[in-house]
Amino acid sequence: MECNGTMVGTRRRPWAEAMQLIMRALCMLCSLVAISFMLTAKESTSLNIYGFILPLHSKWSFSQSYQYLVGVSAAVAAHSLLQLLIGTSRFLKMSSVIPSRNHAWLIFAGDQAFAYALMSAGSAASGVTNLNHTGIRHTALPNFCKPLHKFCDHVAISIAFTFTSCFLLATSAVQGVIWLSQH
Amino acid sequence: MECNGTMVGTRRRPWAEAMQLIMRALCMLCSLVAISFMLTAKESTSLNIYGFILPLHSKWSFSQSYQYLVGVSAAVAAHSLLQLLIGTSRFLKMSSVIPSRNHAWLIFAGDQAFAYALMSAGSAASGVTNLNHTGIRHTALPNFCKPLHKFCDHVAISIAFTFTSCFLLATSAVQGVIWLSQH
Repeated sequence: MECNGTMVGTRRRPWAEAMQLIMRALCMLCSLVAISFMLTAKESTSLNIYGFILPLHSKWSFSQSYQYLVGVSAAVAAHSLLQLLIGTSRFLKMSSVIPSRNHAWLIFAGDQAFAYALMSAGSAASGVTNLNHTGIRHTALPNFCKPLHKFCDHVAISIAFTFTSCFLLATSAVQGVIWLSQH
Repeated sequence: MECNGTMVGTRRRPWAEAMQLIMRALCMLCSLVAISFMLTAKESTSLNIYGFILPLHSKWSFSQSYQYLVGVSAAVAAHSLLQLLIGTSRFLKMSSVIPSRNHAWLIFAGDQAFAYALMSAGSAASGVTNLNHTGIRHTALPNFCKPLHKFCDHVAISIAFTFTSCFLLATSAVQGVIWLSQH
């Protein structure tokens, strides 16, 4: 407000800023792990149902929810990498990681939007996975995860890392709000 | 920071505060509509698959994702009602809707958490619904939404209102950040 202009950039807290950069790096790492586990989720087997054999091919790209998860995680990894590079270069130049209020709003908006997107992707994927685990109760179908346990494990790990990444981004967004409320 | 104390409660903007209350009311309404459409999603029919008849009973409570959506929407409706009542009573007493920075942080945290929860519930439910629409591509199963179109319509409307409610809460959260950054 009236008292902002002079305060921007005056108080540097290197530890807090280093923490932010570490969180960005962790977030990028989690997204990349989520992508790699999802991309390797593939298994083929067959299922004996009502006495005749159904072939089961499971691959991540068969489900739109899993495709969505990979897309969102890739976008988050790119966003985190960009912020990490900008932040690190500013940090090494000994200038404040967040140069202005407008920049802080931009980072907050990005973090917030990507955190929502990750939450959405993780939930959509785990909704589908949950269905795989319990079988579909509309009809008398069996549990798909018993014959396809490797596939299901990969998907579950990928979803876990997606939620971790979402949590890290949400924390970044809250840090942005704290910054905005203090400057 | 240093110049906050005196600014809290000095500038009232009745139109902005009235807008906030209207958004709370809308959010509550959307959540209630989402709950009511989901609770009435029920249909029974039968499906001719591979030449023999499969009975299909679909009800919202068969899917954990739909149960989760109802639970989260109910919590959001309660949160919105509470905030609406507190806000309206403060508004009518001609005092500021947000009395202090701590209160603003509390509202922001609540809005943020519930917005994430709604995003998660909506996405989980639409992941499952999407599966219903396209059939499950792991196996050669047909599209469940053709015989069960009334059920699928109810679920789709419920999910749409859940996302609307999420959008309204996210907007409330951003308004909270604007308030925090200005006071």
